[in-house]
Amino acid sequence: MVGGGSDAFIGAIHRCAAFMDNQIELVCGCFSINPEISLSSGKDYFIPENRIYTSFKEMIEKESALPEGERMDFITIVTPNMLHFEPAMMALEKGFDVVLEKPMTFSLDEAKALQKKVEETGRTLALTHAYTGYPAVKEAKRMVANGDFGKIRKICVEYMQGWLSNRVELNPTSNAGWRTDPKRSGKAGCIGDIGTHALNLAEYISGLKCTSLCADMETFVPGRMLDDDGAALLRFDNGAKGVLMASQIAAGEENNLTIRVYGEKGGLEWHQQEPNSLILKWSDKPMEVYRTGNPYMGDIAKANTRTPGGHPEGYIEAFGNIYRNFAKTVMAKRDGIAPKPEWNDFPKVEDGVRGMQFIETAVTSGYEEDKKWINWIN
Amino acid sequence: MVGGGSDAFIGAIHRCAAFMDNQIELVCGCFSINPEISLSSGKDYFIPENRIYTSFKEMIEKESALPEGERMDFITIVTPNMLHFEPAMMALEKGFDVVLEKPMTFSLDEAKALQKKVEETGRTLALTHAYTGYPAVKEAKRMVANGDFGKIRKICVEYMQGWLSNRVELNPTSNAGWRTDPKRSGKAGCIGDIGTHALNLAEYISGLKCTSLCADMETFVPGRMLDDDGAALLRFDNGAKGVLMASQIAAGEENNLTIRVYGEKGGLEWHQQEPNSLILKWSDKPMEVYRTGNPYMGDIAKANTRTPGGHPEGYIEAFGNIYRNFAKTVMAKRDGIAPKPEWNDFPKVEDGVRGMQFIETAVTSGYEEDKKWINWIN
Amino acid sequence: MVGGGSDAFIGAIHRCAAFMDNQIELVCGCFSINPEISLSSGKDYFIPENRIYTSFKEMIEKESALPEGERMDFITIVTPNMLHFEPAMMALEKGFDVVLEKPMTFSLDEAKALQKKVEETGRTLALTHAYTGYPAVKEAKRMVANGDFGKIRKICVEYMQGWLSNRVELNPTSNAGWRTDPKRSGKAGCIGDIGTHALNLAEYISGLKCTSLCADMETFVPGRMLDDDGAALLRFDNGAKGVLMASQIAAGEENNLTIRVYGEKGGLEWHQQEPNSLILKWSDKPMEVYRTGNPYMGDIAKANTRTPGGHPEGYIEAFGNIYRNFAKTVMAKRDGIAPKPEWNDFPKVEDGVRGMQFIETAVTSGYEEDKKWINWIN
Amino acid sequence: MVGGGSDAFIGAIHRCAAFMDNQIELVCGCFSINPEISLSSGKDYFIPENRIYTSFKEMIEKESALPEGERMDFITIVTPNMLHFEPAMMALEKGFDVVLEKPMTFSLDEAKALQKKVEETGRTLALTHAYTGYPAVKEAKRMVANGDFGKIRKICVEYMQGWLSNRVELNPTSNAGWRTDPKRSGKAGCIGDIGTHALNLAEYISGLKCTSLCADMETFVPGRMLDDDGAALLRFDNGAKGVLMASQIAAGEENNLTIRVYGEKGGLEWHQQEPNSLILKWSDKPMEVYRTGNPYMGDIAKANTRTPGGHPEGYIEAFGNIYRNFAKTVMAKRDGIAPKPEWNDFPKVEDGVRGMQFIETAVTSGYEEDKKWINWIN
Repeated sequence: MVGGGSDAFIGAIHRCAAFMDNQIELVCGCFSINPEISLSSGKDYFIPENRIYTSFKEMIEKESALPEGERMDFITIVTPNMLHFEPAMMALEKGFDVVLEKPMTFSLDEAKALQKKVEETGRTLALTHAYTGYPAVKEAKRMVANGDFGKIRKICVEYMQGWLSNRVELNPTSNAGWRTDPKRSGKAGCIGDIGTHALNLAEYISGLKCTSLCADMETFVPGRMLDDDGAALLRFDNGAKGVLMASQIAAGEENNLTIRVYGEKGGLEWHQQEPNSLILKWSDKPMEVYRTGNPYMGDIAKANTRTPGGHPEGYIEAFGNIYRNFAKTVMAKRDGIAPKPEWNDFPKVEDGVRGMQFIETAVTSGYEEDKKWINWIN
Repeated sequence: MVGGGSDAFIGAIHRCAAFMDNQIELVCGCFSINPEISLSSGKDYFIPENRIYTSFKEMIEKESALPEGERMDFITIVTPNMLHFEPAMMALEKGFDVVLEKPMTFSLDEAKALQKKVEETGRTLALTHAYTGYPAVKEAKRMVANGDFGKIRKICVEYMQGWLSNRVELNPTSNAGWRTDPKRSGKAGCIGDIGTHALNLAEYISGLKCTSLCADMETFVPGRMLDDDGAALLRFDNGAKGVLMASQIAAGEENNLTIRVYGEKGGLEWHQQEPNSLILKWSDKPMEVYRTGNPYMGDIAKANTRTPGGHPEGYIEAFGNIYRNFAKTVMAKRDGIAPKPEWNDFPKVEDGVRGMQFIETAVTSGYEEDKKWINWIN
Repeated sequence: MVGGGSDAFIGAIHRCAAFMDNQIELVCGCFSINPEISLSSGKDYFIPENRIYTSFKEMIEKESALPEGERMDFITIVTPNMLHFEPAMMALEKGFDVVLEKPMTFSLDEAKALQKKVEETGRTLALTHAYTGYPAVKEAKRMVANGDFGKIRKICVEYMQGWLSNRVELNPTSNAGWRTDPKRSGKAGCIGDIGTHALNLAEYISGLKCTSLCADMETFVPGRMLDDDGAALLRFDNGAKGVLMASQIAAGEENNLTIRVYGEKGGLEWHQQEPNSLILKWSDKPMEVYRTGNPYMGDIAKANTRTPGGHPEGYIEAFGNIYRNFAKTVMAKRDGIAPKPEWNDFPKVEDGVRGMQFIETAVTSGYEEDKKWINWIN
Repeated sequence: MVGGGSDAFIGAIHRCAAFMDNQIELVCGCFSINPEISLSSGKDYFIPENRIYTSFKEMIEKESALPEGERMDFITIVTPNMLHFEPAMMALEKGFDVVLEKPMTFSLDEAKALQKKVEETGRTLALTHAYTGYPAVKEAKRMVANGDFGKIRKICVEYMQGWLSNRVELNPTSNAGWRTDPKRSGKAGCIGDIGTHALNLAEYISGLKCTSLCADMETFVPGRMLDDDGAALLRFDNGAKGVLMASQIAAGEENNLTIRVYGEKGGLEWHQQEPNSLILKWSDKPMEVYRTGNPYMGDIAKANTRTPGGHPEGYIEAFGNIYRNFAKTVMAKRDGIAPKPEWNDFPKVEDGVRGMQFIETAVTSGYEEDKKWINWIN
């Protein structure tokens, strides 16, 4: 693990998610750019001292020098955006599979280079767009693909948070620091941090690709250097239209990621904060609520569920599905067999490239006052 | 009443709403352009035959010739859009107050002429933007005006219906006929029929005015002549931004009008389909749910509530509030006294003009491919 | 109308409910035992002074002396429980139909005498168990009768209020005064005021009859003279079991009447505070939500709905359904024709008798410490 | 681990829950009475073959013979009820701490013996009443203890499932087999399996003890040998009253555990299926919704939460809290320091004894036709 010291939020999630299915152990790490934090974190995580490293370079080099069976199997990178590309590239080159936080890189160019490297090396890269790990989301995707709603016409996706309503980044212990700093986060703030999740979710469920958009981006909190609010009108490759909203100044909202997809015959609705329900609304019959863990769910949803109906699963389980599916896929590849479809269902380098393209396109449009539609920037 | 024969939906709502508070009686009407329907409808409504008319002109003329105390007190116009202006103008000229369906007129020019006439005559005109009649909406307005949320930054309003997902207008008994016909409805379909409600609600609650917008409008159902789906990015006069969505092809949605308004300190959320709850989300304290009919509600909300908490009020009651408030205001004016603020709170001719301006602006932007922002068309 | 002066809550509801469908006018009344309040209330209600009476006796006598077509058509009694029987009996004897508040009488004996009188006179008596007026409740009844859930096994019904958590009856303007006074309310407080609604709803939807019960009743608020909380285990005539809860000290609850009925194949759930949704849960398929105003609803539910789906109807509309159905039934009888089933669906004298029997049985059991099951007291 | 082979549901949950916080490893086990299943399960769980045992006796003996630091630290028992007592007693005697499934034992006598043994040995025993592991439940307990609601008057708790609506126990792969078999489950079916959870939750949150009850129990499904439905009126030691419902024939219900607790000033409501929200209703102010992961939550709730607000946690996390708290407490004891209160908050042997007493009392009352109240059987 690169990053994820005891002072970081998302690293702890990664660890819970990775451990829960007993497929993955944490064997080494470089948990902080601060060597003391790295060391103390590593000890807290029960890592032997000789495998707690002070830099990702040291780690990848030393681990790759260990005999097979002893060295780490893959690397997880949970650092700020400007520190995704280098360790990921180096790990791929040294033959490690990679789990990477989103957005995938600091720039689109890096993303493309990473994609090329993945293709060259044949390694597996998983991107932790965790929300596609929820079984109800997988079921939604299945239903759309199955044509249950007819042709899709309209997609409304939004990701509303309120935690940046004030300048919390001035608090040095806040996770907001790097997220609002263009040097560490990249061109985008809110639209990169959570807008990419929204776009990824919309494309994952609908199976469509956004082809152009018209965005309006704003920085509401004085002194902040990156956008903290945005919205975009979307057009998709089948003629569907959409609206995407992402905000971190929607004061009072926790982590309200919601999607609705409407086709000719009906629509679906899913709320991340109540993730075990998938609401279906129909033109000609009563609303239905599909609930995870029930026999009527599809095979992929079932394979990504651990508990029977009524025992709620949450964010860590969704995250865990990405780790488990990644691990199962990596193991299948090692064994020279084709990964099963239910495992080989996690965000990959292509999704990361699309995320960076989205950031490029959204930022271009978001500060454009005259031109209405910006075509997808490839 | 002009329109509202036994074959019409909204006329029946008007009558329930008008009657329920025992302030208003139906004394005459011209209920259909079909004289037989008008006659049979009038009889069903217990109107004496001599006051069932065959045209609005006949009605207004004959009624105005009756002695004061016998003639109708005001006129309600519930016809398709192309038949709003003429009867409203004639009624005002003959000294009658007017209740009018939205959108107010067929064109912006008509709206301005009507506004001028209202100002000239000093009569009262109520526009049935019924959703602002809900007590929870009035409480939301009060809280925003009181500064409870700090400066408003973001408004998300949407009105999603699915009933036009197919070409129901081909069914001659459907209410969709005139709504999808540019000769009877005007320049806009969905954005006029329900987009105006959404804009009105946003401006009512926030106290802000939209100053420019960037819209995308679409006709999804083949053969249809007017838009059945639209979305717009909004900018408001205090610097707030917004998103408005209106759709009649959101298959499976009934009448899902939802608004969220976020300020610096917190946000509010209201769903028309569960209208007795007003959800407040705060940056620094737990979510609250205000419920109509409780002692903690504000005075205007209370004056517009008939039942104690937990006895749900609905659409007809909200509609009834417009009628009751209109009636109380008209009566106060007759008595030469100032209407109380809690009664003088209903949509007026100015709201109708803004609605027609919104249609103009949205239609201009909605079919524009190049220019991004369209300033509000006055 | 007997009772329902400007100082009373439920009288206002009755008037809104009666007026909204334009089938019923208020033509006379004795609105209070205080003649001044009666007079001023009557004037507020636009009643001519000569038909504002000072006692129900005067009213019934004078009205019955008026020529047919001029005199009132029926009488509505909205007084405290101890004043139900006399005016109802007198009205029936003089040939008037009756609408009566629940619980029907002060005692079971009175209830039986009233039932006998109704049978003798052939008049129509409607009891305002308003909650059975909701279309979703009627649809629930239809589904159970249709066998959609298989044989019914379990019924859970509860009516939770919090407004009597303190001794509000000490406030002379409170509606709690007579409700907590055994001289005006009868043997029961909470169990009579709202427990009867719960039992009525359970029997209405399920089509079953309670045959025995085991209750525990309590007065939590010191100084109060009647029960303010109760619960009972129920047994029904088909072998189903149930639980009924009624409380007026469930602090913070508004008017939370909720019922669940489970059969062999699935169950239904309905919440009075969100009355437009009927939730169906199934053993072998996803949950469904039926919503009032949609084409898939049954005929009786449709006949009791005024608005299309998504335009919420509430308590007053449910109440209005009782008035409208009563009026349609009375008119059909006058015309010598059989009332249509969709109109002839309102609580009748039999329901009132069962309510009084329930009070007798519940009070007997509720204060019994030794004997477990009390058979239904006929 | 004793039990929890690949054919068992709850064992998998225990493992996820135990692993997720990286405090606990699975080092040995006897996973099934079928040695082949035990072996193959153990291999799936990455256990070395020499520590996959064929009986709990073998396991406890051999493990206790291993040097400290190598042998297992504690034992988890996830077998059917009739196999709880023996391994737990033997483990305690051999100096191991114990995690045990509920209900704690087959009989009350066993429970008392186990309690005595725990007291004698000073070992730690955790009982997996998982629902008290939810942070919102812990917050509810804190609020009640803090007097936020005033004196508690009324507790309504219910646990509704529908999965035993048919005779699923006839399917040999079903988990229903031992649960409906008095030889393996004990005196009670539904009331033991889930009724004990409901009682435990009520006593945990309220801090009260049930002192007597009046129950009605039933077996609705023909051929079944144990109760599948029950309800009880409850009385608590402070004078509060309550209702408990537990059903496994509430067709269509998944795992609907819901509790409401009302005091003099307000009440709380919690639904296990939406576990991140704690609903507070007040007599004199708007409803509040507390959400896990927010800064306003109390310390114990916070210590039992892994994610920030809006990232839902579920059943496995609640379960994981029991394991983590148990592990932290055991480690603190080993280190000779007092466990922190936030860790030392998990169900213990005393809760297990109360659960068995509840089963005794409920079964005694549930089949009693004459006597109303049964005092708590100690």
